[in-house]
Amino acid sequence: MSKRHVSLKTLAQTLNVSISTVSRALRNHPDISAELTQKVQELAQELDYSPNPLAIGLLKHQSNTIGVIVPDLVTYFFSSIISGIESVANEHGYYIVIRCSYESAEKEKECLDNLLKLRVAGIIMCLAQETQDYAHFSNLIEEQVPLVFFDRICRPEEVSTVVVDNLEAARRITRHFFESGYRRIAHIAGPAQLNITQERIQGYQQGLAECDLAFDESLLVHCDLSIPSATEATRQLLALPVRPDAIFGVNDTTAFAAMKEIKRQGLRIPNDVGLVGFTDEFHATVVEPTLTSVMHPTYEMGREAGLLFLEQVNAQAAPAPRQAVLTTQLVIRESSVR
Amino acid sequence: MSKRHVSLKTLAQTLNVSISTVSRALRNHPDISAELTQKVQELAQELDYSPNPLAIGLLKHQSNTIGVIVPDLVTYFFSSIISGIESVANEHGYYIVIRCSYESAEKEKECLDNLLKLRVAGIIMCLAQETQDYAHFSNLIEEQVPLVFFDRICRPEEVSTVVVDNLEAARRITRHFFESGYRRIAHIAGPAQLNITQERIQGYQQGLAECDLAFDESLLVHCDLSIPSATEATRQLLALPVRPDAIFGVNDTTAFAAMKEIKRQGLRIPNDVGLVGFTDEFHATVVEPTLTSVMHPTYEMGREAGLLFLEQVNAQAAPAPRQAVLTTQLVIRESSVR
Repeated sequence: MSKRHVSLKTLAQTLNVSISTVSRALRNHPDISAELTQKVQELAQELDYSPNPLAIGLLKHQSNTIGVIVPDLVTYFFSSIISGIESVANEHGYYIVIRCSYESAEKEKECLDNLLKLRVAGIIMCLAQETQDYAHFSNLIEEQVPLVFFDRICRPEEVSTVVVDNLEAARRITRHFFESGYRRIAHIAGPAQLNITQERIQGYQQGLAECDLAFDESLLVHCDLSIPSATEATRQLLALPVRPDAIFGVNDTTAFAAMKEIKRQGLRIPNDVGLVGFTDEFHATVVEPTLTSVMHPTYEMGREAGLLFLEQVNAQAAPAPRQAVLTTQLVIRESSVR
Repeated sequence: MSKRHVSLKTLAQTLNVSISTVSRALRNHPDISAELTQKVQELAQELDYSPNPLAIGLLKHQSNTIGVIVPDLVTYFFSSIISGIESVANEHGYYIVIRCSYESAEKEKECLDNLLKLRVAGIIMCLAQETQDYAHFSNLIEEQVPLVFFDRICRPEEVSTVVVDNLEAARRITRHFFESGYRRIAHIAGPAQLNITQERIQGYQQGLAECDLAFDESLLVHCDLSIPSATEATRQLLALPVRPDAIFGVNDTTAFAAMKEIKRQGLRIPNDVGLVGFTDEFHATVVEPTLTSVMHPTYEMGREAGLLFLEQVNAQAAPAPRQAVLTTQLVIRESSVR
């Protein structure tokens, strides 16, 4: 027998099933048929499979630190989620070690490598917006290193995730605009590859359809979630031959930037242009007009991610991935009611 | 000789000098006279002084983690500072482990104990507003564990600190109000025990004096930096028999809360009441009227704290404490010019 380490991947490829199936079969998960379970376990024995020594090291180290990777440390959204993770960590004798990916895929990989070298117990993270290739998570997944994604996620069939009801929230915003009399409803969306962007666009389109409004491509623009990019997106929308009468921003930062630009052009909110954000920061109640927004349970999202993480750490065998979907609420204020 | 560990404190008490003097004398610091240096070194030899084994352990452990303790994880002020610390840490191969004291003195001690047990290389922190007794830092100071305070500090003669020119900034705000024609200038200050509160009150009073305005006690109210408390402070000021015509909030959160309450009472900003904050968050440019504020270099404050920390870690002998004072700028917007 080769000295090469036999991984879950080897077993999966040999049997032509997924890694997560193999992983589940090895721990007698009820979702996997008895027949396949037997087949996997026999092969594992035959090839002398044992979990990756590095991963074992990680797990056995009994580290009480959780690596947390966020794309941005400064905005309220992430600081509030970090606060939720920290509170759960603290309650359970864990520490959080924070790294920032600055929205870069390369830096994200670096953060991941560095944190694993630091021998953290596992990782809780939100994807950088640049990240489009998810291969750098394969090793972690394969070796069952505790891992939780929040907000911007990938590979949910293999990794536990915490998200909000993005589609439903976006649908509700669109219908709310319609009910307030708006008819040319625009959406400043996030980067196309992110799940949150895709789900909110789906909700937006579904809302339009339910209100018998045709989807107009020119009313959907993307931004990179930064203030300058959201300002530019707003300019683009307001320069259309037939201007939108409502704008749904993918988050509050986007909406605040849009508000500033709409006012700068001498247009009135909500009379000329209605506006809705997504996050519901405290500042939504201070700006004028006050901003209608989706109340995103950020602190709870952090806590839920922490709890899902500890569930993995404390389980005898890695539990099946879980998807937590938190519920949002539309908080209607002045900016969207005329 | 007793088996009890002879500490810097023992040496200091025996010679009736400060611990920091002893510490400096042991490393031939030029500030200490040759005579005293000799006296200290002789006593150290006589009593068989050696640095605390725990502290040695901490230092020798070559840990590449920095414990960071903040009173609050969510507000822009702290998340931006954390971002600065993280960027320096990252550049030098360090990791930050974050703990939140939630403004509690007891939790602060707990965070400190826990982080030291985790064997971090040292601590960068901002005091909780409840902390009034600084004894829990004595051990760290005595044993020269790398330590940096930022914003809210204590014992600056013994510990390196990073602050801004609080007095000067508050003086400038007060004079700016006067120059804009305001005459009953109020100040919503922070908790009385904090250095930032004291320095800003001093600057406020100095500014008043320079403008030949008498200091009126009823125009100085304290808050605990929370939104409800700032709202209550605003109510108290607006209920005075002779209402103030200008309010200087100790930070932007306070100013935003004041803005909301002033508007709620049907008063106009800046005509009826002028308003100035302190931090200069992005939101200051979005609220209406836009908020005049002191640009607080938060990210730079975090970087400076990180650099002072690394200076201590990398020094052969603990360097003398350094006080970094960063410069602020008053950014004048609509809320304070009528």
